[in-house]
Amino acid sequence: MVYFDLNNEDYRTKIKQLGDNDLQLLSYDIRDFLLTKVSKTGGHLASNLGIVDITLAVHKVFDVDRDRIVWDVGHQIYTHKILTGRAGGFDKLRKYEGLSGFPKTSEDASDVHNSGHSSTSVSIAMGLAESRDLLGEDHHVVAVIGDGALTGGIAYEALTNAGVRNTKLIVILNDNGMSIAKNTGSMAVHLNKLRASKKYQIAKKTIRAGLERIPKVGGNVYSKSARIKEIMRYAMVQGSLFEDLGFSYFGPIDGHDIVELTEFLEAAKYIDGPVLIHAITKKGKGYRNAETNPDRFHGIGPFELETGVPIAGNTASYTSIAGETLARLPDEGNKIVAISAAMSLQVGLEPFIKGHPDRVFDVGIAEGHAVTFAAGLALGGMKPFVFIYSTFLQRAFDHMMLDVCYQKLPVVFMVDRAGNVGEDGETHHGIFDLSYLGAIPGLTVAAPKDGEELVKLIRYAADKDGPMAIRYPRAAAVYPDMESAMAADAGQLALSEILREGTDVEIRAVGRMVSTALEAADILSGENISVGVAYDRFVAPPDSVSIRRAVAEKKLIVTLEDNVLAGGFGDKAAAIVAEDDNKTGFLKLGWPDEFIPQGSQDKLFGLYGLDAAGVAESIRKKFARIC
Amino acid sequence: MVYFDLNNEDYRTKIKQLGDNDLQLLSYDIRDFLLTKVSKTGGHLASNLGIVDITLAVHKVFDVDRDRIVWDVGHQIYTHKILTGRAGGFDKLRKYEGLSGFPKTSEDASDVHNSGHSSTSVSIAMGLAESRDLLGEDHHVVAVIGDGALTGGIAYEALTNAGVRNTKLIVILNDNGMSIAKNTGSMAVHLNKLRASKKYQIAKKTIRAGLERIPKVGGNVYSKSARIKEIMRYAMVQGSLFEDLGFSYFGPIDGHDIVELTEFLEAAKYIDGPVLIHAITKKGKGYRNAETNPDRFHGIGPFELETGVPIAGNTASYTSIAGETLARLPDEGNKIVAISAAMSLQVGLEPFIKGHPDRVFDVGIAEGHAVTFAAGLALGGMKPFVFIYSTFLQRAFDHMMLDVCYQKLPVVFMVDRAGNVGEDGETHHGIFDLSYLGAIPGLTVAAPKDGEELVKLIRYAADKDGPMAIRYPRAAAVYPDMESAMAADAGQLALSEILREGTDVEIRAVGRMVSTALEAADILSGENISVGVAYDRFVAPPDSVSIRRAVAEKKLIVTLEDNVLAGGFGDKAAAIVAEDDNKTGFLKLGWPDEFIPQGSQDKLFGLYGLDAAGVAESIRKKFARIC
Repeated sequence: MVYFDLNNEDYRTKIKQLGDNDLQLLSYDIRDFLLTKVSKTGGHLASNLGIVDITLAVHKVFDVDRDRIVWDVGHQIYTHKILTGRAGGFDKLRKYEGLSGFPKTSEDASDVHNSGHSSTSVSIAMGLAESRDLLGEDHHVVAVIGDGALTGGIAYEALTNAGVRNTKLIVILNDNGMSIAKNTGSMAVHLNKLRASKKYQIAKKTIRAGLERIPKVGGNVYSKSARIKEIMRYAMVQGSLFEDLGFSYFGPIDGHDIVELTEFLEAAKYIDGPVLIHAITKKGKGYRNAETNPDRFHGIGPFELETGVPIAGNTASYTSIAGETLARLPDEGNKIVAISAAMSLQVGLEPFIKGHPDRVFDVGIAEGHAVTFAAGLALGGMKPFVFIYSTFLQRAFDHMMLDVCYQKLPVVFMVDRAGNVGEDGETHHGIFDLSYLGAIPGLTVAAPKDGEELVKLIRYAADKDGPMAIRYPRAAAVYPDMESAMAADAGQLALSEILREGTDVEIRAVGRMVSTALEAADILSGENISVGVAYDRFVAPPDSVSIRRAVAEKKLIVTLEDNVLAGGFGDKAAAIVAEDDNKTGFLKLGWPDEFIPQGSQDKLFGLYGLDAAGVAESIRKKFARIC
Repeated sequence: MVYFDLNNEDYRTKIKQLGDNDLQLLSYDIRDFLLTKVSKTGGHLASNLGIVDITLAVHKVFDVDRDRIVWDVGHQIYTHKILTGRAGGFDKLRKYEGLSGFPKTSEDASDVHNSGHSSTSVSIAMGLAESRDLLGEDHHVVAVIGDGALTGGIAYEALTNAGVRNTKLIVILNDNGMSIAKNTGSMAVHLNKLRASKKYQIAKKTIRAGLERIPKVGGNVYSKSARIKEIMRYAMVQGSLFEDLGFSYFGPIDGHDIVELTEFLEAAKYIDGPVLIHAITKKGKGYRNAETNPDRFHGIGPFELETGVPIAGNTASYTSIAGETLARLPDEGNKIVAISAAMSLQVGLEPFIKGHPDRVFDVGIAEGHAVTFAAGLALGGMKPFVFIYSTFLQRAFDHMMLDVCYQKLPVVFMVDRAGNVGEDGETHHGIFDLSYLGAIPGLTVAAPKDGEELVKLIRYAADKDGPMAIRYPRAAAVYPDMESAMAADAGQLALSEILREGTDVEIRAVGRMVSTALEAADILSGENISVGVAYDRFVAPPDSVSIRRAVAEKKLIVTLEDNVLAGGFGDKAAAIVAEDDNKTGFLKLGWPDEFIPQGSQDKLFGLYGLDAAGVAESIRKKFARIC
């Protein structure tokens, strides 16, 4: 049943006039809307269903234009977008030039910060709050953070910093119990204890009774403020870790009870210093399929609303092949361990977990610890494989460099979702790893061109006595014959291989771009440009011998990679080419040094000239100029 | 008075036989030794004086070869080195091929991990402990971490992870109150509360009395173990944050009372799961000058033992010029704020603090939060300058990229100690920043060639509406005429400047290497090679027009930078040179893609061919081959 016209109205003012019942009805409509839209477009579903009521309460209590609301990670911002007049954009959610699935200041100024990675909201909010105080402003600053994001170290850094400075700031902890379910940190255990404690129930009643005696409108403002402060002080609950960190703590309250939420948020405004409101929610709230399986409905493609079944069929992916290979690796002495940062299933670890549940460590959203912990495991005699998405591994750059590579420890970094990731856009493209991994001394970096190569490289890494990174895309892959792929000799892998001979041009391609290079070579062969293709299996160290050979033989060398140009494979090859005593033409192709927007992967490759036609065109032009 | 022959003995076995009095005498001798040696060589003093007694207790209770002791950061490892037979090496402490000032597995296997950056010990220890359990081993794993290091988020990530897994592991918290003194986090306030609490005194007495009734040798091992567990359970203190995180907490105890320390550590062995022993120490203990001024004696050059006065005179440095400039910047609306990560004085902020104490934020050892907090400050309307050493800024790579640069926020990164830092060695050289900063889209990166240029670039950055990084070395600099440097026009700064004309060769030099380039050009001019020098003020974006002009005009282009070659300025220039339709010779000079050891800066530049003679020689050879 639809009571509200979501598509054509901006609710940020109107919501102030809605009564408790209307807000409840609005929450139903929003959940309906989310389900209808996201089942068609795909997107982040479960977290958005879970935070509808908190978002409504925030909009009811705060002025989202004047006050500053920071949504941690940001993928749970859909309701905020609906309420700020962007419901009409949901048909193009996550599409090229469509509505972003994350906060986007260019869409609406009430999106405070373009976020995407976890655990930063308290730092951002603290910066906003300290600015406000220095500039003599008086608005409120609110950070909304999930219990999962609290496992990230930067959240703790910010909480302790705000706690000691006594910064006036409201943190809403959206506790959907995800981190306790995954058993990823003792903070979650602590939150669970707080949930179970009776004294919080008593405190809650105290606050409600106290607040009810204060007239909602009118009255002496000063005495109202003083009275609320007194009630809150009286009701503040002792015994939470947040108090030890300098926060006033209230909760746990029901994160789906809009009345209770608005009462607490209204009262929190009167507290000087940092305050944390602990709200309990259910991920996927209101959609049975998502409530029972929130992980599967976290980020999802289009699905059938009734059954929850994905519309696209399952195809093998680099991710699933990686997980399957790990589970099949020969492992004398049971030394292989797998580490993930809150992503064990998403990175394909299911087959390994089945066989070796005691050798899988999900450390929470804590990439720095994941990597340094792996260093400790390696020092202790294990063979760790660390599975982290390319974009999130940026958080562990220093730890990879010093804790693992400086000491030459045999840790394997499984860098999933490297390169173009499509719809998640700017904050999630894994297009920087060849640059930051390539700057780390002693780290071998490889990129498989297909599923079979991925298997070989994993087997090679398993036997290697030193650090290695394997980067592979978020893409479908032909499932190799695992029996023979596991049996083949992986001990010796050439740094590069010539896949196609050509007399004029040699494309040196990395990873998934090898197939694009082959297609481009086909296109150009029809135009009498003879193009060869080399597969640069290893990016670091690059195959300088083969590249120098090409300098001597070819008229033009072209590098092609699914990475930004700055510091990528192209720059490495350029240095070899430029320093060579022979001279030849050179062209590097990859992502420009910009943040690349959202859109389907194919759309983006096409737009940036990184599909076969675009690559052929770039080569055609360069070749015409120099020859 | 010297009772022990430190120079010629290894104490790791002998210490088991020493009684309480002997251990006390040994602690005196070690402090004498540290003062005598470090006053001559320089090094980390205050922290090492503070941890002598904890180290003795650890050696007394544990087998440092079989058990695994992880020293956080590592610069407080001197006593451990003395006790493991390395006292003789202290005359060459921190010198090239001499004793390292940090743990070094190649010196002795009891140095577990080559560390250097803060807050990683619990992650490493947890890895070692989980390995031990998987492999069925039974040794102890101990992490020794300071209260300052506890401000780092990765320490929290590891504590919560060990807490939820119930990993058997002993954490010794060496609380010298440094972070409370600096007011950098509410964790410090919490520790201070624990210190002040009376119930800990009672618990301490309970443990001592209980343990005294257990015979030290002999007896039924099982019943001894059961009895100790019972005593510890009874004495465990309630109310600390560490318990909330899943640790058994004991303390606070006197970190200079070796008897008390050994009792607690001995008992801690019997606890299943993670345990934290909170020991109170005094930084600089036993040396009055360091006790009263621990910050100045943290890392120090040679000094006069009696007075504590440094032997080398104070000269102006890039660091002091940066701080002085910040304090003098015109600042309409008081928008400038300065952020440091536990290093406000070390990065030269004293003059700014004097004028604007309310606009300086020391966030603790929390580089990620420092950067994201700065993003929040910029969003709130301030102009943040973030002062972090190059090597530590690696911790905030992702935060710089997404929280600041993706949103084009006007944050200035003051990247101090960039390049060769000398004696701190592998873990501290700032030779990677041009690579990792250069890969971040939209970040302008500049490197001044001298003090005057530093002033100009800071003024330029202050006016810039977008993110910028200025990297400058740990080096002396000629103090510019501040009045005129502040008055000169800094609005327009060319990307590069030709400093010396030459017809054959053009050296494109970055930062401090400009003076080396000029000297090398002088050397070669005597050999009839005409060498010009360009100062590449901006590394990102590079001056492609000027470089292409050089390709057309010169026989050889040489890049020279105080950075690793991989992904540095040389690679950027190489791509421009290689892609140019004109062809010429090219050579890139910088640090090889390795971890560079300790030694004086001059020594290292010389060894790696990066002094004027070495640069001249490289150019001479290359030029002879191609011309």
